[in-house]
Amino acid sequence: MAGNSFGKAFKISTYGESHGVAIGVVIDGCPAGLSIDLEFIQSELDKRKPGQSKITTQRKESDTVQILSGIFEGKSTGTPISLLIPNEDHRSKDYEHNKDVYRPSHADYTYDAKYGIRDHRGGGRSSARETAARVAAGAIAKLLLKTYGIDIFAHVTSVGQINAPNLGSESVEQLLILREENIVRCADPAIANQMIEYIDSIRKDGDTVGGKVSCLIKNCPVGLGEPVFDKLHADLGKAMLSINAVHGFEYGSGFAGSEMKGSEHNDIFVPAENGPKTLTNFSGGIQGGISNGMEINFTVAFKPVATIMHNQQTVNAAGESAEIKGKGRHDPCVVPRAVIIVEAMAALVLADHFLRNKTVKLT
Amino acid sequence: MAGNSFGKAFKISTYGESHGVAIGVVIDGCPAGLSIDLEFIQSELDKRKPGQSKITTQRKESDTVQILSGIFEGKSTGTPISLLIPNEDHRSKDYEHNKDVYRPSHADYTYDAKYGIRDHRGGGRSSARETAARVAAGAIAKLLLKTYGIDIFAHVTSVGQINAPNLGSESVEQLLILREENIVRCADPAIANQMIEYIDSIRKDGDTVGGKVSCLIKNCPVGLGEPVFDKLHADLGKAMLSINAVHGFEYGSGFAGSEMKGSEHNDIFVPAENGPKTLTNFSGGIQGGISNGMEINFTVAFKPVATIMHNQQTVNAAGESAEIKGKGRHDPCVVPRAVIIVEAMAALVLADHFLRNKTVKLT
Amino acid sequence: MAGNSFGKAFKISTYGESHGVAIGVVIDGCPAGLSIDLEFIQSELDKRKPGQSKITTQRKESDTVQILSGIFEGKSTGTPISLLIPNEDHRSKDYEHNKDVYRPSHADYTYDAKYGIRDHRGGGRSSARETAARVAAGAIAKLLLKTYGIDIFAHVTSVGQINAPNLGSESVEQLLILREENIVRCADPAIANQMIEYIDSIRKDGDTVGGKVSCLIKNCPVGLGEPVFDKLHADLGKAMLSINAVHGFEYGSGFAGSEMKGSEHNDIFVPAENGPKTLTNFSGGIQGGISNGMEINFTVAFKPVATIMHNQQTVNAAGESAEIKGKGRHDPCVVPRAVIIVEAMAALVLADHFLRNKTVKLT
Amino acid sequence: MAGNSFGKAFKISTYGESHGVAIGVVIDGCPAGLSIDLEFIQSELDKRKPGQSKITTQRKESDTVQILSGIFEGKSTGTPISLLIPNEDHRSKDYEHNKDVYRPSHADYTYDAKYGIRDHRGGGRSSARETAARVAAGAIAKLLLKTYGIDIFAHVTSVGQINAPNLGSESVEQLLILREENIVRCADPAIANQMIEYIDSIRKDGDTVGGKVSCLIKNCPVGLGEPVFDKLHADLGKAMLSINAVHGFEYGSGFAGSEMKGSEHNDIFVPAENGPKTLTNFSGGIQGGISNGMEINFTVAFKPVATIMHNQQTVNAAGESAEIKGKGRHDPCVVPRAVIIVEAMAALVLADHFLRNKTVKLT
Repeated sequence: MAGNSFGKAFKISTYGESHGVAIGVVIDGCPAGLSIDLEFIQSELDKRKPGQSKITTQRKESDTVQILSGIFEGKSTGTPISLLIPNEDHRSKDYEHNKDVYRPSHADYTYDAKYGIRDHRGGGRSSARETAARVAAGAIAKLLLKTYGIDIFAHVTSVGQINAPNLGSESVEQLLILREENIVRCADPAIANQMIEYIDSIRKDGDTVGGKVSCLIKNCPVGLGEPVFDKLHADLGKAMLSINAVHGFEYGSGFAGSEMKGSEHNDIFVPAENGPKTLTNFSGGIQGGISNGMEINFTVAFKPVATIMHNQQTVNAAGESAEIKGKGRHDPCVVPRAVIIVEAMAALVLADHFLRNKTVKLT
Repeated sequence: MAGNSFGKAFKISTYGESHGVAIGVVIDGCPAGLSIDLEFIQSELDKRKPGQSKITTQRKESDTVQILSGIFEGKSTGTPISLLIPNEDHRSKDYEHNKDVYRPSHADYTYDAKYGIRDHRGGGRSSARETAARVAAGAIAKLLLKTYGIDIFAHVTSVGQINAPNLGSESVEQLLILREENIVRCADPAIANQMIEYIDSIRKDGDTVGGKVSCLIKNCPVGLGEPVFDKLHADLGKAMLSINAVHGFEYGSGFAGSEMKGSEHNDIFVPAENGPKTLTNFSGGIQGGISNGMEINFTVAFKPVATIMHNQQTVNAAGESAEIKGKGRHDPCVVPRAVIIVEAMAALVLADHFLRNKTVKLT
Repeated sequence: MAGNSFGKAFKISTYGESHGVAIGVVIDGCPAGLSIDLEFIQSELDKRKPGQSKITTQRKESDTVQILSGIFEGKSTGTPISLLIPNEDHRSKDYEHNKDVYRPSHADYTYDAKYGIRDHRGGGRSSARETAARVAAGAIAKLLLKTYGIDIFAHVTSVGQINAPNLGSESVEQLLILREENIVRCADPAIANQMIEYIDSIRKDGDTVGGKVSCLIKNCPVGLGEPVFDKLHADLGKAMLSINAVHGFEYGSGFAGSEMKGSEHNDIFVPAENGPKTLTNFSGGIQGGISNGMEINFTVAFKPVATIMHNQQTVNAAGESAEIKGKGRHDPCVVPRAVIIVEAMAALVLADHFLRNKTVKLT
Repeated sequence: MAGNSFGKAFKISTYGESHGVAIGVVIDGCPAGLSIDLEFIQSELDKRKPGQSKITTQRKESDTVQILSGIFEGKSTGTPISLLIPNEDHRSKDYEHNKDVYRPSHADYTYDAKYGIRDHRGGGRSSARETAARVAAGAIAKLLLKTYGIDIFAHVTSVGQINAPNLGSESVEQLLILREENIVRCADPAIANQMIEYIDSIRKDGDTVGGKVSCLIKNCPVGLGEPVFDKLHADLGKAMLSINAVHGFEYGSGFAGSEMKGSEHNDIFVPAENGPKTLTNFSGGIQGGISNGMEINFTVAFKPVATIMHNQQTVNAAGESAEIKGKGRHDPCVVPRAVIIVEAMAALVLADHFLRNKTVKLT
C-alpha cells in the first residue's frame, strides 16, 4: 500500500522521478467554479525552482506547468485537475557514480532495500524535485483559500545558529514583500544578510547547513480540524514531516511549552466580536485540534542537505566499503526554497480541512 | 468528514466520551492467528489509568477492558476486534460549573463553535480519557510486533526544565524495569526523583507543568514507510501530534539538527551483517521516510495540563466575561501516563506500516 | 487490508460474530445536531430480527440496541456514535456438527482458507446476523435523510417465480402500511398471500427459495453521486452486493434495458418547476452517475438460503468426503427480512453522498 | 469529496475530459519488479479505441499511451506509474449545438446541476473516452495477475435480443482467438455474425441498441475478497457499474438464482487436489464474498447508447423546451468496445484484492 496521495476532500496524488519524463499531480476534489490563475501557479513554482540565486543549486529547470484537465474557460469544473511539469535539465551522468553506491544520509539504501530496484538518476522518486508537484497543487489550494480570505505566509527563521526574531504586526502582504526582497527568504532584512553570508561561506567550503522555516496562517475560520486523529495540527505536522529533510515540527508554544507551567501557558479568553479571542497564543491558534480563530503558527526544522562536496566513506550495493566523491549541483541550504513548499503543504491541509468541515453540522 | 479512524492496513476506529456509557475501539485489519493475551492488554491500560500515584489525578477508574469480537479460542480471526472499556467514576457534577463557560486552553470553545453542541461532562470527546482506547488497541499492535521481534520503549525525558540524560545501551527489557521502578516513568532513577519532587511541589501549588517523552524502537526491519507522504516519521509525527496536549515532535537529530552542517550530520555507512549500519544515527533510523534498520528514536513535547486549581478569567457561551474556578481531580503533569500512550501510538504506526510493506514487491 | 468499513463521509465500521458477545457499529461522520430517536432505531431492528413470523427463522433474539457514545441530550454531537447489540440466543451446540465440515454454498471453506482460523459458531462473522449492525446504522442515516425529506422504501417483488406487478402512485407512507400488513413484506396484498403460501410449503419441505427486493428513493435532490468511480448507482450496487446472499443488482431499465433501442430507452426531458423532469424513467433517477431528481429505483436478487433441512454431501476440513445433516433454525427465504437491510444500505449510501455533495462547488 | 480514485492497495486515479489536452491515470501501489510491456498496454488500448470497424464510431484516435514515471529499465519501481494519452481528434464544433441543451439520457443536465459548470465538448468528463485510462491501468493490472497465472476473459453475450449460448471448455487463449476473429467480440462465430448484422441495421436506422458482456476469471487463488463490505463480488459489481452505460450486474446464478430452491442451487463440495471443488458453480466462484478457487463469472448489462441520429425533444439550460438534432460520430452499440473495459476493471479489482489478501494472516 503505497503513500503517494494526500488529503481526503481536497486530495492530491503525485508522481514522477527526478530524471524521468515528467513529474505531476492530480487534484481530486477541488470545488467547481474556482478561477484558476495559471500565472499564479507558475509564479509559485518559480519560487521553488532551482537556479534562482547564488545560494541555491545551479541546476536550471524552467519548471513550466501545463494543465491537462479539470479547467474549462478559466474555471475549475469539479473534475480532476491534472498538472504536469516536464523534466528538462537531466544530467543523469552526474549520477552514474552513485548507481551502485549508497550516499550517506540519502534514501539510496532504503529504497533499494524496500523495493529491490531503484531509479538512481538524480535520486529518482526520493529527490526533492518531487515537491514541485506539491507546490503546483498547493498554488491551487491557495487560490481556493484566498476566496475565503485565508492567508498563508512562511519565511526562514533560522540558518544554522543564526535566528530571526519574532515578526511584528505586519500584514501578510507586507511580509511577502519583505521576504522576497532577499534571496534567503527571511522577512528580517538584517538577519537575512547574515544568513546569506553564512550560507555562501558554507557553500564555498563544499558543505551544507540546516535551518528552520516558520509559517503563519491568518484569518483561518474557527472550527477547522477533525478530532481525534485528524486534528488540524496533526495533519499540518504530517504534511511538514513528509517534506524532504524535515526532522521536527512544533506549533504554538512547541518544545518550549514543555518547560512551562499551566498558569503561565493558559491562553485567557476575552470577549470580542465574532467570538472570543485569547490574550496570549501559546495554543498556536488550535485548541483540541480545532482552529480557534487566532493566528495559526508553526515551525519546521530542516536537517542539512546530505550531498556535500567532500569525499565520504560509505558502502556499495554489494555491501562493501566504498568512497563517494562529492560532485553535482546541489543546494548548500534548503530553507530558502523550502519556504514555498511549507506554504504549499499548509495550503493543502487547510483546503482539505476547510472542505471537510462542511459536513459536520446539520444545516 | 470526521477523523476518528487511524491507519490503513491495521486500522482503528475509536469512540466514546469521558462521562458517556463507555469508550472503545474497533480494530480492522489485525492479521488472523495472533495470540491475544488479555492480561497484557489490561496491564497496558493499568499503566495509563488514573489514580496510579500521588503525582497523577486521583480519579479512580479500573479501565477494565472487554473483548466483544474478533477473537476465537484465544486467537485473532482476521475479523474486526472490538474492545470496550465501560466508564465508571463519573462525577459529572464536577463539570456543571463549566457547562456554559469556556475553560482556557481547553477544547470547550472550539467544540462548541465547530459542532454547535457539546457534551461538557468531563470534557466529553476532547478528554484524554479517549486515549485509553488507543492504549488497548496499541497493546494488540504490540503483540503483533513482538511476534516479529520489534520492541518499543518510551520514557519521560523531561519535566519542566529537568532533563534526563541520554540512555545507555540497556535492553528494552532492562529499560522497562528501570522505568517502572518509579512513578514518573523515567529510566534514570536519580533524575526521576527530582522530577517527582518537582511535580509534587507543582501539584501543591495547584499548578501544572509540561514535559517530554522520548521513544525508541528496536529491531525494526529495514523498509517500513511509504513515500512520499506516508513516510514513517511523518506517520509517527501525526500519531504523536494527535495525542492530547502534544505541541511538538522531532526524530533523529530533530530541531538540533537544523543547526548542524552536513559534514557533521551525515551518517556514514559501514559494512555489517544483514545490511549496512551507520556510525552515527542523526537520521533517527529513518532515511527517505523508510526505516534503515538502525534504532528509531523520537521525542514528543507535551504542554502543561490546562486545568489548574487557580481561578481564571474567561468567557462564557454567551460571549461575556466569566470566572472559572479551579476544581476537580486532574493530573499536575501528563507525561508519566503519556508514556504508555506514546508507545501505543508508535505500535499502531509500526503495525500498520509492517502490513503495508507486504505489498510493495513482487514475490 | 480488511473491509469492515463502508462510506467516506458518513462512515460505518461494523464488528461482531453470530455467537460472540455482541455485534455493533461505530458511525463516524454523522452531522451534529440530529435528533436521535432510539425507538425508531429499535423499530427498524425489530423488522429485521429473527422469529418474527412463521416464514422466518424461529431463533429468538430481541436485538436490543444500546447507544454507547455520540449522543448528548438526545442529539448527535458530531463525535462517533457507537451502537451495540448484545447476542442472546446462542445455541452454539447446533453448530458443533459443522465445526470441521464445510456447509455447501456457505462461507465455511473460504473463511478457513483465507484466514486459517474460523469461528464456526453460527457462521461467525459470515452470518447474516452481521446485518443487524447495518440496520442500526441505517436507521440513523434514515433519520438524517428524513430531515431533508428523502424517503426510502423497499419491498419484496418476487419469491421464486411469483412476481409482484409494478407499484402504482402510492406515497411512501401508504406503501409502508401496505407492506407491513403482511409477513412477507410485499406491498401487493394478493401477491403477498401467494408468496407466503409458497414459502410455507418450501419450509415444510425443508427447502429454501430465493427472491427479489426492489427499492424506491423519493425526493432525492439532484446532484448526488461522484463520477467517475463513485457513481451513485455504483455505490448503491456495491452496498447491495455486500449483503449476504445477493447475486444481482440492476437499476432503472436494468437487464431488460440491454435489449432495448436508444430510441425507445432515452428519457425525454420536459420543462418543469425546480428543473427538468423526464417523461419516462429508464435511467432510474440517475444519469452519468448523478441523481437527476426523478425517483431512484433498483432491484436486488437474493439466492436461496444455503442451509436446508436435507442431508448433503460435502467435504471436511481434512479434505475428505463428509455428510452434513440439515438442522438448526433458519429462514426458508430471506427476502422478508432483507427488505429492511436493503433500505438500511440504501440509506447509508444516500447519507454518504448527501454529505459528499456538500464540497463540490464554491459557495 | 470527489470519486476519481479506485482501489485501495492497487489504486488508480484518473483524469481528463473528452476534448481536453489529454486523459490519463496514476497508479499507486503497483508492486516493484514487474516487467512492463508497453506494447501490451497499447494493444489493449487498440481494442478499445474508436474507429476499429464499421460497427463502432468512426472517430479516429490513435490513443497512444506514454509512460511518464514509475518504470526504470523496463520494470516497475514501486513508485507511482503515470500513463498519459493525448487527445487528438477533437471536433468540438460537433458539440456546439448542445452547449446549452441537455441531451436525453446523457449526463449534461446532472453535471450542470451538480457542479454549476460543464465542459460540454464531447461530453467532457462524462464521456466514455475516460475509460481509456482505465484500460491502460487495467493492462498493467493484467500483467501483474499474469505473473500469478490469473486469466481474465470477457466477450459479448448479447446484443438486443440476440443471445450467445454458454461457453464450452475452451482455454482463455483459445477464447481470445475466437473473440478477436470477429468485430463484435463474441466468442461464438455464428452468433457473432447475427449480432454484427443487427448492429449494422440499427446503425443505418440512426438508432442504437444495448447488450451484455460476460466475464470469466480463471485460476483465481482461493481467498480473495474482504468481508463484510469489500466482498469480491461487491467490488467487481461496483467496478462494472462505474462503467458508462452499465445498468446491471450479476454473478454466478445471478437474477435467475432468485427463482431457484436451495436444494437445486447449493454447490456440493467434492474432494480434489489443492482444496475442495464444487460440482456446480451457482456461487460464481465466490462464497461469503471470498473466491473459492472455482471459475469466477459475471455478466454486465449495458443500456443502448443515448446519442441517436434522430431529432429529439428536450430542455435547454434555461429550462425551456428545445429540440436536439442527431449528429456526430457515435457507436451504435457499445458492447464490442466495452469488452475490453470490463476486463480492465475486473483486472483492477483482482489486482487490488490480490495485494490486500497479503496482510490477512500471520506469516
